[in-house]
Amino acid sequence: MRSHYCGTIDTGFIDQTIELCGWVHRRRDHGGVIFVDLRDRSGLVQVVFDPDRAEIFTQAERIRSEYVLRVEGRVRHRPEGTVNPEMPTGEIEVLATGLEVLNASETPPIQLDEYHADVNEELRLRYRYLDLRRPEMQQRLRTRAQVTSTLRRFLDDQGFLDIETPILTKSTPEGARDYLVPSRVHPGEFYALPQSPQLFKQLLMMSGMDRYYQIARCFRDEDLRADRQPEFTQLDIEASFIDEAELTALMERMIRELFREVLSVELPDPFPRLTYDEAMQRYGSDRPDLRVPLELVDVKDLMQDVDFKVFAGPANDPNGRVAALRVPEGAKLSRKEIDEYTKYVGIFGARGLAYIKVNDWATKGREGLQSPILKNLPDAAVDGVMERTGAVDGDLIFFGADKTRVVNEALGALRVKLGHERGLAEDAWRPVWVVDFPMFERDEKTDRWQALHHPFTAPGEDQLELLASNPGACKSRAYDLVLNGTELGGGSIRIHREEVQRRIFELLQISEEDANDRFGFLLTALKFGCPPHGGIAFGLDRLVMLMTASPSIRDVMAFPKTQAAACPLTGAPAAVDQAQLKELALRLRATS
Amino acid sequence: MRSHYCGTIDTGFIDQTIELCGWVHRRRDHGGVIFVDLRDRSGLVQVVFDPDRAEIFTQAERIRSEYVLRVEGRVRHRPEGTVNPEMPTGEIEVLATGLEVLNASETPPIQLDEYHADVNEELRLRYRYLDLRRPEMQQRLRTRAQVTSTLRRFLDDQGFLDIETPILTKSTPEGARDYLVPSRVHPGEFYALPQSPQLFKQLLMMSGMDRYYQIARCFRDEDLRADRQPEFTQLDIEASFIDEAELTALMERMIRELFREVLSVELPDPFPRLTYDEAMQRYGSDRPDLRVPLELVDVKDLMQDVDFKVFAGPANDPNGRVAALRVPEGAKLSRKEIDEYTKYVGIFGARGLAYIKVNDWATKGREGLQSPILKNLPDAAVDGVMERTGAVDGDLIFFGADKTRVVNEALGALRVKLGHERGLAEDAWRPVWVVDFPMFERDEKTDRWQALHHPFTAPGEDQLELLASNPGACKSRAYDLVLNGTELGGGSIRIHREEVQRRIFELLQISEEDANDRFGFLLTALKFGCPPHGGIAFGLDRLVMLMTASPSIRDVMAFPKTQAAACPLTGAPAAVDQAQLKELALRLRATS
Repeated sequence: MRSHYCGTIDTGFIDQTIELCGWVHRRRDHGGVIFVDLRDRSGLVQVVFDPDRAEIFTQAERIRSEYVLRVEGRVRHRPEGTVNPEMPTGEIEVLATGLEVLNASETPPIQLDEYHADVNEELRLRYRYLDLRRPEMQQRLRTRAQVTSTLRRFLDDQGFLDIETPILTKSTPEGARDYLVPSRVHPGEFYALPQSPQLFKQLLMMSGMDRYYQIARCFRDEDLRADRQPEFTQLDIEASFIDEAELTALMERMIRELFREVLSVELPDPFPRLTYDEAMQRYGSDRPDLRVPLELVDVKDLMQDVDFKVFAGPANDPNGRVAALRVPEGAKLSRKEIDEYTKYVGIFGARGLAYIKVNDWATKGREGLQSPILKNLPDAAVDGVMERTGAVDGDLIFFGADKTRVVNEALGALRVKLGHERGLAEDAWRPVWVVDFPMFERDEKTDRWQALHHPFTAPGEDQLELLASNPGACKSRAYDLVLNGTELGGGSIRIHREEVQRRIFELLQISEEDANDRFGFLLTALKFGCPPHGGIAFGLDRLVMLMTASPSIRDVMAFPKTQAAACPLTGAPAAVDQAQLKELALRLRATS
Repeated sequence: MRSHYCGTIDTGFIDQTIELCGWVHRRRDHGGVIFVDLRDRSGLVQVVFDPDRAEIFTQAERIRSEYVLRVEGRVRHRPEGTVNPEMPTGEIEVLATGLEVLNASETPPIQLDEYHADVNEELRLRYRYLDLRRPEMQQRLRTRAQVTSTLRRFLDDQGFLDIETPILTKSTPEGARDYLVPSRVHPGEFYALPQSPQLFKQLLMMSGMDRYYQIARCFRDEDLRADRQPEFTQLDIEASFIDEAELTALMERMIRELFREVLSVELPDPFPRLTYDEAMQRYGSDRPDLRVPLELVDVKDLMQDVDFKVFAGPANDPNGRVAALRVPEGAKLSRKEIDEYTKYVGIFGARGLAYIKVNDWATKGREGLQSPILKNLPDAAVDGVMERTGAVDGDLIFFGADKTRVVNEALGALRVKLGHERGLAEDAWRPVWVVDFPMFERDEKTDRWQALHHPFTAPGEDQLELLASNPGACKSRAYDLVLNGTELGGGSIRIHREEVQRRIFELLQISEEDANDRFGFLLTALKFGCPPHGGIAFGLDRLVMLMTASPSIRDVMAFPKTQAAACPLTGAPAAVDQAQLKELALRLRATS
């Protein structure tokens, strides 16, 4: 029906007759001539309808925005003064010699041209097929397709086999709520939708598949936070006879190739590595944004004997932390700005935000500092802080003093916020591997050990003794890939011996009965020659969101759900017939 | 952990030291030496443990089938007389110089070597991770991965965008039962799992995406027939501004490239085409197996005046058919064989299977024929049959006479069975497009029109008038790709005008309310500039099953369900907690 795409026509086509199909992006009448910007996936081209060709012109008078046209025309230079250098096709126009209106359109409820105001998201989702016509959205989905195809080609070439795992399956161990699917054939029983293919990919390693990947749909029935979706996509990878060094090196190559292919960006080689402990120490976070150069500095030992209880308390608490954060040129911060930051750290439980402004330390020493807390700090403490932070005149030092968790969360978040707001962050891609995670963290509510990753993560090879003696100190063989403060992916070398797996379940206080019930098939499989193996999973939606600089993962999915897990386009979820429920042996329960 | 894969070692490695990882496929002790066939994804290699190396030998004495080993060794020629030409690595062996037992294995409950007897399928599925270690299963999944990657590369290169559509969605229109997913956020409401991405891919065309594909998981809660699965995979494709000629030509190229790449088979170019009417006429089926040269021949007009009621009845019924099927050299068939075939056509409702054996027509004419029905047929009828079928001495002619549907099904199936059993079928790949399908078929139970494909299939451009005057005669723009009697894929040009879509719904007696309720979003979308578009979907499981000559689609899926829609490995589906049901506002209903 067409000879070319609209956006590909340039001066190389002058005097050629071409056929185009597309949508009326804009129509203007000027000097008795009708101008139409015709749009398809590739871009826009200007089509001119001249009144000399009466029949076509009459037809063209009827066309409106979003009409679907087939146009035959001759390519010509635009008249002098009308060339549009902003447009790839801006030097030419197409004089229509034939026109077929393939379909009409009512006036669209949302505007599609680049001048569109920010449209209500509910409306965008309801008319998603219009929203997706916007060049910006087209570009995002195109980039997403390019990302998946680049990743697949890399993995295919590395001998990974794309293998599909079931969607209708049994509860998986991620711990969020499962979506359930009632079975008609087995009344009263349910399938669960997988939160990840974790157990299946381990089973595939036990199946001798050696290298597996899948771009896998995953499901979590979570209370929807800002940027979560009931279904999301992950690039899921697993390999046998491999250790963490080999696996992370291969994944780095993949991500480097991805950024090179899709964004023409060269990422560092190798990616830097941080231990979990170091990340928490320096950045207060296990997903540090390395674009921000600010770092947390420990001053706990300096504050143990000070009178100031706000500092001395946490400084003498084994679970406490006192840390400083130097803000270059922060002395300029106003009272009001400092109040805002104080409010911000409050979100993370910090009860205040002490600071020192370094106005003139160089010549006046202590007299050159300005701070409400200064009177409470002896010289030794002040000198120590100045030395460790390396503060110079014009800087400001923030302090966090509380339980370690609170200080890390509060100063970690403040660090990132300050970095970006104060123009201190690099404009760069800064990937980092975080490694040597603890195996367990203490659940404060239940006072039990919890797996920091998941219960199939292997402990470090030299850490097995700690499992018994000091589980909290035991490091795992997990690794997370973090990019600009976002976790792109996480994985681990897995447990491949049944007895280790059973010990981990015990530590997690999963009873033998419960373990057999939930993971019995895995425990059985471990008896029959499980190879050493490990893997990783990348959040594809989040990766594409970062790469396209989109404000939300909803913007990189064709048909996302709202934050209430509904689809305004199709109306899902919806009520169903009583007859259907009866077939499934279900009844609705009245809800209050 | 390893330097090479087992199956890749050949005489090029002689005297090299290599490291291998894999499973003990077989262990034999011979002349005081231990021989192990070590297996990984790539194949087998023979490893030799020599008693000269006492430490390793002692370790090797412990190893059993399916132990996981890491072996270091030197490659050497096998001694004369022990070369195994059946094995790619059969000229060499690896003399072990190092051994690490990475994992032990209990005795596997199913045998994995090539001598294994046919194991009970339930057991194979329960221990799927063992079953999948068998080279045959490895090869099937590897071919499947190669198939998907070849298809993806072709479509990527043709500008198709891989776009994901939702799994949690609304009922789709395929007509089988949907799997439902209760919503916790919206109590009493349900998502449905898609039977296909049909409506979403049409919406993507309305979104201007132009060319889409997806390897999409689909779900149907059907009563499970021989070779169906609750979830299956389809290669789903849609394109805009395209007609059936262009689309089918592109798909042919894709399938040709697939067979060339994966099987080194050259398929015909172009694929032959049959109209639906011709397919039914000649093969009694709209998915004819063209490897079988036999054809149905109409003899209805010859039988209208015969005394034989079995023929005359259908011959005078407008819905009846009388057809003959010539079987070359069929005169050899025994009474017993004919009885078997008679029983076989009974499955399809045929009440008998009349025949004529052509013993000596050349010299004796009618006297040379042998048949229980001969006495009932006048000369004209016999002469007509002989002429039309082109029967020669030694042949046999079968007859079908009944409602057209019964004759087509019975003789169509008999044709295929005879062809394969009597050695008449070619050993070849015989693809064929079937086109010009009727838009509708009459549902005999409800006496209503039903869409032969689905209600979004466009009627032929010259067929619109028939929609009103004679819907049964109206042809659609659908096309099916058939390979060796199996439907590989089916698709159509879709309706892109709202008024046509509404007329089709009316004809199908879908009330306006019902149409709006189920497909309102599609009808709305059609108002806003829907481009002409069409597409196709291929059943990936079935395609791979054909290409790997597997007995079942379960053999080309990593973790299939049983015919009772259960997974013996994980135990899905399973009972769930009352608390979970309560959260979903559901109660179980007692079933009798």
